[in-house]
Amino acid sequence: MSENTTAEVVEEQISEEISDASLKHSLERSRQIEADIASNPGRYRILTGDRPTGKLHIGHYFGSLSNRVRLQNLGVETMLVVADYQVIYDRDGVGSLQENVLNGMADYLACGIDPERSTIFTHSSVTALNQLLLPFLSLVTVPELHRNPTVKDEMANNPNRPMSGLMLTFPVHQAADILFCKANLVPVGKDQLPHIEITRVIARRFDERYGRVDAKTPVFPQADALMSPAPAILGLDGTKMSKSKGNTIEIGMTADETAKLIKRAKTDSERHISYDPVNRPEVSNLVLLAALATGGDPVQIADELGDSGGGGLKKLVTEAINEHFASIRARRAELAANPDHLREVLRAGNDKANAIAEQTLDEVRSAMEMKY
Amino acid sequence: MSENTTAEVVEEQISEEISDASLKHSLERSRQIEADIASNPGRYRILTGDRPTGKLHIGHYFGSLSNRVRLQNLGVETMLVVADYQVIYDRDGVGSLQENVLNGMADYLACGIDPERSTIFTHSSVTALNQLLLPFLSLVTVPELHRNPTVKDEMANNPNRPMSGLMLTFPVHQAADILFCKANLVPVGKDQLPHIEITRVIARRFDERYGRVDAKTPVFPQADALMSPAPAILGLDGTKMSKSKGNTIEIGMTADETAKLIKRAKTDSERHISYDPVNRPEVSNLVLLAALATGGDPVQIADELGDSGGGGLKKLVTEAINEHFASIRARRAELAANPDHLREVLRAGNDKANAIAEQTLDEVRSAMEMKY
Repeated sequence: MSENTTAEVVEEQISEEISDASLKHSLERSRQIEADIASNPGRYRILTGDRPTGKLHIGHYFGSLSNRVRLQNLGVETMLVVADYQVIYDRDGVGSLQENVLNGMADYLACGIDPERSTIFTHSSVTALNQLLLPFLSLVTVPELHRNPTVKDEMANNPNRPMSGLMLTFPVHQAADILFCKANLVPVGKDQLPHIEITRVIARRFDERYGRVDAKTPVFPQADALMSPAPAILGLDGTKMSKSKGNTIEIGMTADETAKLIKRAKTDSERHISYDPVNRPEVSNLVLLAALATGGDPVQIADELGDSGGGGLKKLVTEAINEHFASIRARRAELAANPDHLREVLRAGNDKANAIAEQTLDEVRSAMEMKY
Repeated sequence: MSENTTAEVVEEQISEEISDASLKHSLERSRQIEADIASNPGRYRILTGDRPTGKLHIGHYFGSLSNRVRLQNLGVETMLVVADYQVIYDRDGVGSLQENVLNGMADYLACGIDPERSTIFTHSSVTALNQLLLPFLSLVTVPELHRNPTVKDEMANNPNRPMSGLMLTFPVHQAADILFCKANLVPVGKDQLPHIEITRVIARRFDERYGRVDAKTPVFPQADALMSPAPAILGLDGTKMSKSKGNTIEIGMTADETAKLIKRAKTDSERHISYDPVNRPEVSNLVLLAALATGGDPVQIADELGDSGGGGLKKLVTEAINEHFASIRARRAELAANPDHLREVLRAGNDKANAIAEQTLDEVRSAMEMKY
């Protein structure tokens, strides 16, 4: 029996999927940075964020939010962008943006994002950040934009709908999000490595083409990807977790709602519980959730469950989730009851982000000799 | 002998080239607007501008600048953008931007642009204008961008150099320039009609997709093209006028420099002077310049020159140009000697443009429900 932590088990899974050298390099670099953060958290500024599509769920929580809180608590300065312009790629049916943003704020704060240490801001509120799009667009070619995997996927998934200019330029928006605050660290999954790469390219080309303000330092740093040990959590039906499929558990749900949803979760007919993600994805996903919520090892948890069957497994997962989120949910309810406070926190974050963006834009104008 | 003004002669030339109904419609609409401006100048706000590529020449002057001054003096509010970001499409070799911008300012003011009635601003200095690029990019498709004639030309002229993202999104920048100040009139040549069209499309789609702040009025107006009666002036060598070819006369040149350049101008071997742009482009171009500088009719001028030959023609053109620009040049010299004043005028213009842009961006955020 191994005594690995969840993170180690998951990292092994990621490692197994590695096919190319650059991904291996990114993982190795991430390990070095993680080690350095422990002693030098002040060396790093993180950019991270979400699209405001609604209430956050446990996939967001275990996939990224808990990792952000961990890094923040290690002392790394964090900028958290609420990417509201990204919602207008496909505006239909995301509901009220204001409501979504406030719900996300309540989730962030309840889960431990501390506005004293992390800056939460809405993308559309930071004007000088958005202006960076123009100089950055001069540094990438149209074929480079088309080669971006997210852009390619969007193209492939919508063969009959022409892509918007906003979608095509998406990789440059992400670069602006990262570079406006000179973030040098971006927690990502491997799908997002190409976004970090184009951000590094833009930073490098800006330096080559437009030069510097301070002769010794480029205007923009080379950002590193921090490959988070984020497990791939499935929805309760065993398919990809997605709000629109109703297969998620929202962070802010009650214990009863959580229990009901887990009761309906898909398992299989075998009584013996095992952790075998390839052959038993649904059962293993529930085991993984229990492991994540308790901080335990999924293999050991499965072992202890033995012949408890789907019922025993679901009981354990329900208890684990409800216990893990009990205090978070209590805090969330308080926060949600005071939207004015949430708006104040956002306003303060936007003010701070604007000050940073204006400083950066000022340097950009100097480097480009566009100060008159 | 016709007694047409230069404008009428030129308008006839343009009319002859018209091949499609939409162009005819635009010309007819321009005539109506011109008639209306005379009695209702307050109904219009004009957006116009140039790329800051260096000192302005007589092609700029007769092609657009004198028309801007005319419209300003009729009482139409004018916004004049110095499109500095457009220079970074092909940054190599445009020289110092600061110097180019100040030179352009001196040209503008010397030629009669009055900063009390016209707002001169640099594109990169108006942050809220630039942010409009993002919502507007959500309203056009990538194929639409590729179909824009300027983008197509750029692609065709540089088959071996991939186009930058900035160049591809150029039509949307122009739309932002026009719409940020809710200009409803843009003086253009027929080549630029497609830019007005995409601006109208973006304004319409914004209204349909994101809605209004005031229920009765769309956030953005439908801008009209004002087809200026601008003649196609050639360079002194009979080819397209271009600073890089050295075939231009700068507005700020001395009378002697002007005389020397015209002396070297290309003519033909026939002594009899006629106004026949198709068969005698070089000679006719000089006749046209004399007509523009004196406000006369090119056919009549050619008639009066009779058998004076190239020498007589050049003498007349030199006198006409030098007389027309004498006071402008004197003012220009004074202005150029006081760059601090030029910077102050630009700063005041930028402040005004920023105030307008922030107001518009505020409405855009309201309409898009992106105020938190």
